[in-house]
Amino acid sequence: MLSLAARLLCLRVSGCCGGSRSMATVVSGNKTSKLVRERLQGDVLRMQVQAPGFRPGLVVLQVGDRDDSNLYISSKMRAAAEIGIDARHVRLPRSATEAEVLRSVQAVNQNPAVHGLIVQLPLDAAEPIDTQNVIDAIAPAKDVDGLTSVNAGRLSRGELAGCLLPCTPSGCMELIRQTGVSVAGKHAVVIGRSKIVGAPMRDLLLWSHATVTSCHSRTHDLPEQVSRADILVAAAGKAELVRGEWLKEGALVIDCGINHVADETKPSGKRLVGDVHYASANQRAGYITPVPGGVGPMTVAMLMENTVQSAWRVLQQSQAGR
Amino acid sequence: MLSLAARLLCLRVSGCCGGSRSMATVVSGNKTSKLVRERLQGDVLRMQVQAPGFRPGLVVLQVGDRDDSNLYISSKMRAAAEIGIDARHVRLPRSATEAEVLRSVQAVNQNPAVHGLIVQLPLDAAEPIDTQNVIDAIAPAKDVDGLTSVNAGRLSRGELAGCLLPCTPSGCMELIRQTGVSVAGKHAVVIGRSKIVGAPMRDLLLWSHATVTSCHSRTHDLPEQVSRADILVAAAGKAELVRGEWLKEGALVIDCGINHVADETKPSGKRLVGDVHYASANQRAGYITPVPGGVGPMTVAMLMENTVQSAWRVLQQSQAGR
Repeated sequence: MLSLAARLLCLRVSGCCGGSRSMATVVSGNKTSKLVRERLQGDVLRMQVQAPGFRPGLVVLQVGDRDDSNLYISSKMRAAAEIGIDARHVRLPRSATEAEVLRSVQAVNQNPAVHGLIVQLPLDAAEPIDTQNVIDAIAPAKDVDGLTSVNAGRLSRGELAGCLLPCTPSGCMELIRQTGVSVAGKHAVVIGRSKIVGAPMRDLLLWSHATVTSCHSRTHDLPEQVSRADILVAAAGKAELVRGEWLKEGALVIDCGINHVADETKPSGKRLVGDVHYASANQRAGYITPVPGGVGPMTVAMLMENTVQSAWRVLQQSQAGR
Repeated sequence: MLSLAARLLCLRVSGCCGGSRSMATVVSGNKTSKLVRERLQGDVLRMQVQAPGFRPGLVVLQVGDRDDSNLYISSKMRAAAEIGIDARHVRLPRSATEAEVLRSVQAVNQNPAVHGLIVQLPLDAAEPIDTQNVIDAIAPAKDVDGLTSVNAGRLSRGELAGCLLPCTPSGCMELIRQTGVSVAGKHAVVIGRSKIVGAPMRDLLLWSHATVTSCHSRTHDLPEQVSRADILVAAAGKAELVRGEWLKEGALVIDCGINHVADETKPSGKRLVGDVHYASANQRAGYITPVPGGVGPMTVAMLMENTVQSAWRVLQQSQAGR
């Protein structure tokens, strides 16, 4: 506690003497994801020059008919079409059994025209289905969500060559790269340990040679841990959990939170906030991602990146094998 | 730096005022591994009551003839025999190709009498062999070294049910359990990020709900990071890297290091030390594992534990299927 108190004191003193601090640089996911998508468009065109008629193929497999899933899927289909990826939406009814879902996965695994397969989660099935079992049936080379145990194992053990990375953490790394801040040797703190964001994010930062601390709901001294972060990734799923006062001056703050909070001033009666209290964090951070328009748009862009990457590999192998 | 200096000062002051501190409690791997092996002997006897003639089966697959591998293998064979595990040593010549090694792995995968397969590393082959490819050919359910990508992925993402754990980290957790210190909510620091020790150790501590910091060769402020650890696991492979002065008073220190250093007073001219400077750490830690006799003997014991666990699963499945 002395450490934090002492540091806060130093910062306050320097704040007083140094005059008012400028705001953080905002790291825009809208802009960065647009750059990624434009790059991918170029990649697809180059593929078609190299192998006329060749297009990256993506299948989105959905079980049931959740409204939120339908929305996410249509945004993926739109992004794919824009880039030139041949995306197909395969929909199974809510009555589908695990065996039927597994058969669909196997069919896509065996289809050489498809380079990426995502199973839209959560599965909206009438009978219980073992989600991890379905995910692990995806051929690792087509696992463009990066969620199979094989890809998770490779990433977590630093075998990054040939590994498909989960899209949200991969998007966060892209945002970090945009800032020009080097990760190696920095102290990174990740709040959250989910399969989709927190755990793979920690791995990506670690294998970019940061010293990484994983915090979560059982962490007692979160403000103290956060105060030591040169790079902070918040993926806790708790609205405005991280306060600006907790941050190290100049920290790079990546906010993965997507939380709806009540707001009577809005026509919808709610507004979207991250896991970081933006107004106060903006006063202290060096770089910060906004919500919305930060990490959010990166996820779909990196899904497209994985699909194109996976298609490149197949194309190169087929041309090497000629 | 202020933080560490201030804390060191506090500790020194309290040390002066409180009089001399007692030594750390030594956590013995010799004793704990003996307890594990005795428990496993009992398990095997119970299996034979339940299914006469049934014995856990283990294969150790070796390529080539390295002296150190021969030594490790004979210690595994001895431990297995003592417990009642039917262990077989399969040796391929140095001239073996990757395809031949993979065929041997497949043969063991398909043999229902074998419940555990380890490929002794490093492979001592004349022609280069992709080690991870060989490891990943092992059926995850027989992967008693816990090194396949599938088992690594399950562990790193918290899917611990049905996951076989790497033996050294699993042995460290057994030693931590012996102390009675609870892990949940504690701050753990792991030095090292190897596939065999550091990375899976971090995962085990994280899924035991510690806040975990991973340090490694690119960590700038190792003494500062270590000074915050309630639980420290040193797996850096550097003789006496961690000094007692770095430790938090009362910390639990697990030393995975096995380093030979020159010592003219010994007939062999060398002596074995850990990654922790034992004499100084012993003055400050609450619990400490010695080297030798700490983590070392746990590895083989946990390999046996994994083999027996894997055999139990097969036995229960076969009896459920009757």
